[in-house]
Amino acid sequence: MAKHLTPETKISTTNEQQILVRNKDLVNELMGHVSFTEMFFLHLMQRMPSKGEIAIFDAVLVTLMEHGLTPSAIATRLTIMAAPESVQGAISAGLQGIGSGLVGTMEGMAKNLQDIITAEEGLEASCLRIVNGFKATRQAIPGFGHPFHKPDDPRTPRLFEIARQAGVEGHYIDIVTTLSKTVDQVYGKHLTINATGAIAVVLSEIGVPWDVMRGIAVVTRSAGLLGHISEEREHPIAPFIYSHIEDTVPYTGKRTLDD
Amino acid sequence: MAKHLTPETKISTTNEQQILVRNKDLVNELMGHVSFTEMFFLHLMQRMPSKGEIAIFDAVLVTLMEHGLTPSAIATRLTIMAAPESVQGAISAGLQGIGSGLVGTMEGMAKNLQDIITAEEGLEASCLRIVNGFKATRQAIPGFGHPFHKPDDPRTPRLFEIARQAGVEGHYIDIVTTLSKTVDQVYGKHLTINATGAIAVVLSEIGVPWDVMRGIAVVTRSAGLLGHISEEREHPIAPFIYSHIEDTVPYTGKRTLDD
Amino acid sequence: MAKHLTPETKISTTNEQQILVRNKDLVNELMGHVSFTEMFFLHLMQRMPSKGEIAIFDAVLVTLMEHGLTPSAIATRLTIMAAPESVQGAISAGLQGIGSGLVGTMEGMAKNLQDIITAEEGLEASCLRIVNGFKATRQAIPGFGHPFHKPDDPRTPRLFEIARQAGVEGHYIDIVTTLSKTVDQVYGKHLTINATGAIAVVLSEIGVPWDVMRGIAVVTRSAGLLGHISEEREHPIAPFIYSHIEDTVPYTGKRTLDD
Amino acid sequence: MAKHLTPETKISTTNEQQILVRNKDLVNELMGHVSFTEMFFLHLMQRMPSKGEIAIFDAVLVTLMEHGLTPSAIATRLTIMAAPESVQGAISAGLQGIGSGLVGTMEGMAKNLQDIITAEEGLEASCLRIVNGFKATRQAIPGFGHPFHKPDDPRTPRLFEIARQAGVEGHYIDIVTTLSKTVDQVYGKHLTINATGAIAVVLSEIGVPWDVMRGIAVVTRSAGLLGHISEEREHPIAPFIYSHIEDTVPYTGKRTLDD
Repeated sequence: MAKHLTPETKISTTNEQQILVRNKDLVNELMGHVSFTEMFFLHLMQRMPSKGEIAIFDAVLVTLMEHGLTPSAIATRLTIMAAPESVQGAISAGLQGIGSGLVGTMEGMAKNLQDIITAEEGLEASCLRIVNGFKATRQAIPGFGHPFHKPDDPRTPRLFEIARQAGVEGHYIDIVTTLSKTVDQVYGKHLTINATGAIAVVLSEIGVPWDVMRGIAVVTRSAGLLGHISEEREHPIAPFIYSHIEDTVPYTGKRTLDD
Repeated sequence: MAKHLTPETKISTTNEQQILVRNKDLVNELMGHVSFTEMFFLHLMQRMPSKGEIAIFDAVLVTLMEHGLTPSAIATRLTIMAAPESVQGAISAGLQGIGSGLVGTMEGMAKNLQDIITAEEGLEASCLRIVNGFKATRQAIPGFGHPFHKPDDPRTPRLFEIARQAGVEGHYIDIVTTLSKTVDQVYGKHLTINATGAIAVVLSEIGVPWDVMRGIAVVTRSAGLLGHISEEREHPIAPFIYSHIEDTVPYTGKRTLDD
Repeated sequence: MAKHLTPETKISTTNEQQILVRNKDLVNELMGHVSFTEMFFLHLMQRMPSKGEIAIFDAVLVTLMEHGLTPSAIATRLTIMAAPESVQGAISAGLQGIGSGLVGTMEGMAKNLQDIITAEEGLEASCLRIVNGFKATRQAIPGFGHPFHKPDDPRTPRLFEIARQAGVEGHYIDIVTTLSKTVDQVYGKHLTINATGAIAVVLSEIGVPWDVMRGIAVVTRSAGLLGHISEEREHPIAPFIYSHIEDTVPYTGKRTLDD
Repeated sequence: MAKHLTPETKISTTNEQQILVRNKDLVNELMGHVSFTEMFFLHLMQRMPSKGEIAIFDAVLVTLMEHGLTPSAIATRLTIMAAPESVQGAISAGLQGIGSGLVGTMEGMAKNLQDIITAEEGLEASCLRIVNGFKATRQAIPGFGHPFHKPDDPRTPRLFEIARQAGVEGHYIDIVTTLSKTVDQVYGKHLTINATGAIAVVLSEIGVPWDVMRGIAVVTRSAGLLGHISEEREHPIAPFIYSHIEDTVPYTGKRTLDD
């Protein structure tokens, strides 16, 4: 447990007529003046974004919002069937699946980029060290490979293009290009930089720390899940999913029913 | 349980090189072209928003994102202390508190507005019927009153101003004005239209159904909670909260310790 | 929001060498002396259960723990695939589905029993009033009917038998018997008292308030969900569920892929 | 993502009149015949427990159920205030805090015991290697030390006593005794084996795998949290906690209110 620091918060304060959030007046300086994306960036980075940063942040949020019938979306749909009174519960059920298995690769990629940038051994040597390390332990290298999008994830070049147009230095894009060549060489086949990998790159370009990246996915995915709740209400498929899985997954226990 | 409909989804489909979301090409028509807010509106309402609708949707998201050390924020901060590995878990813990007690008034206000608009008895008569109904059962009338912001919640006139500037017809704003007068008259004192009440009004102006309104609060509040996680990591106060509550809430059980 | 009462708790206190929970010494009077079921009952009801109450409480917990591939179990399995590091998150995802749609009927049955017991009009008249009320509004009457178990849910007579053997007065069992006859008569066909309905009856017999009944289901179902996590680790089926649902639920959006 | 295995489940199957769970007939062999603890053990370990195993499992569940106003309990209480309609949401909010920071030490202890048991270097050498490893990286050694219970956690000797009486071989208890001596020697002061550490020991004695141990804590803690919901309803303290934290944690942002 962390030591007890003097308790304090710099986020927000209020009186009868004024609300300050991150040193801005909510009513007079934020509402009607900034977008969700600007407000979110301000809250997270403690400064207003530039136009380029807004473009990149929006592109990331738009990329991650919706992916169809993912495990998260299925969990949310089954939950809203079982507990229709709790939109917050159904969204939370889906958000639990934004974990190390499906989106966490973003963090792994960001950490690898950080490792490379601070390594003293030079770009190519550090790329080789890292890729060899993953290969030796038979772990998937975070941010590379995709089950459907082959040979390349179409979102990746688009994200890099948006970032370039937004005026980033391109330092991390350059690094990941070398890292990607090393991956192909060491594994002996082409593995695409996937969308979550590319997101780690462009968020690193604008200074977003790796340890909030998963949280950004959680936020925009919650919007995606609300879209699924909305469709589920119009045209429910959770009852089908439930009964279909029951019918499709056979019981193979030792004892059988006394029919 | 709902009847089994033919299973189908209109949300998204994909192949190796293309991803469609709500009938738009994700890579070529959405990424780099639309903001988070436009994408969220598209997903929820199944059409692109007008400029005015974007302004209103953004204002709503900005208004609700952050409210300081709310019950939700405290829950999130305590959770990230206990399970630092799970950002999704800490956000989910906070989101559970977006319930009928704190934000649900939005839904109640929206339902009352809908009731008034479809009533045959005329505006003033239906307002009177509704307000009297709540007073008779000693229930708080949803969307009115605020513990801190007196005499009026400063966010409310700002939201109406933004909506007017965005070019809404103002039908719901007119209704709530009459409803508000009726409230003051029946209760014999001034109760402000609060921010969640006003949000129900402006979202109704742009056709958002009442049953996704709470979900919109969940989405933007998740961004607010990520800001709290971020501050908690820089300057943890959860250990203080935990030990302070333990010290401040006395044990009053019958049996005492054998000191 | 509730009024501010003087803060206090009667649940637990501790010093360096002693821990009191509900007026018992944890180390010397509870650990090694009471079962989980007794401890849970003590915590909830603030008194130790009798032998008969233990038998009934155990029967309820055993009945509800596990139901195969329910919506909750599917949500938990998909979540542990996506976030294998968070057992608490996977269980929580499943627990969100213990809602009004699937287990809440317990609460509805318990409230109806309470209504009947306090009604002045007599047993048969109040049963008739309640059943007619549900029929008139085309709502399912809570605790009656089951999609699979026909003509009768086999758990129901067993629960009543266990309760009788445990020595309950049988007041609520008598009431539900009359209520059940009324249901069959009003609906013109036999609807079984289902397991959650029967649980409401036997828990009412031992004085458990209706507003914690759903919570009891949450507790025992969390044990069931851990069993699913355990099987999922030995023999994962979540990847099958995910890809199978994607394959089985057709995309029917207006725009198709540019193949 | 895991490979697609043939989908199957051995947990449960059902027909109109029979329900099998883990190869037992729910109605005729489990309800009224086994306790919650036996059913939970059966589900998790796929065999019925011996009397001694029941005693140990019960002792573990009883030890972990309730700890007063923990971070989890505070989160649950704040949530039930904000969303009183969702018992499942309030319990889930609290369960998110059963993470690596507060209960995960159980897993760490169990892994260390496993490491020692399979090491070829002998008991004392492997204990020394492990303790030195934690000290060198300045990490807390899992299962040792407690902020309040000094010099020793009173639950630990009680758990070992219960396990001995239940007839365990005592292999893991012996190991932890040596490990504990090594800890004191290397750190130069006495660190108690804490309750979660001791639970890892006694669960290892009866063959429970380390990767479900956190889940066992989740299950029994959910019962504890329901107790807090119950007390919160009788005597709410969440409104006090909320306003007290707001009053006690000062705002230290750069910009101040325009009073």
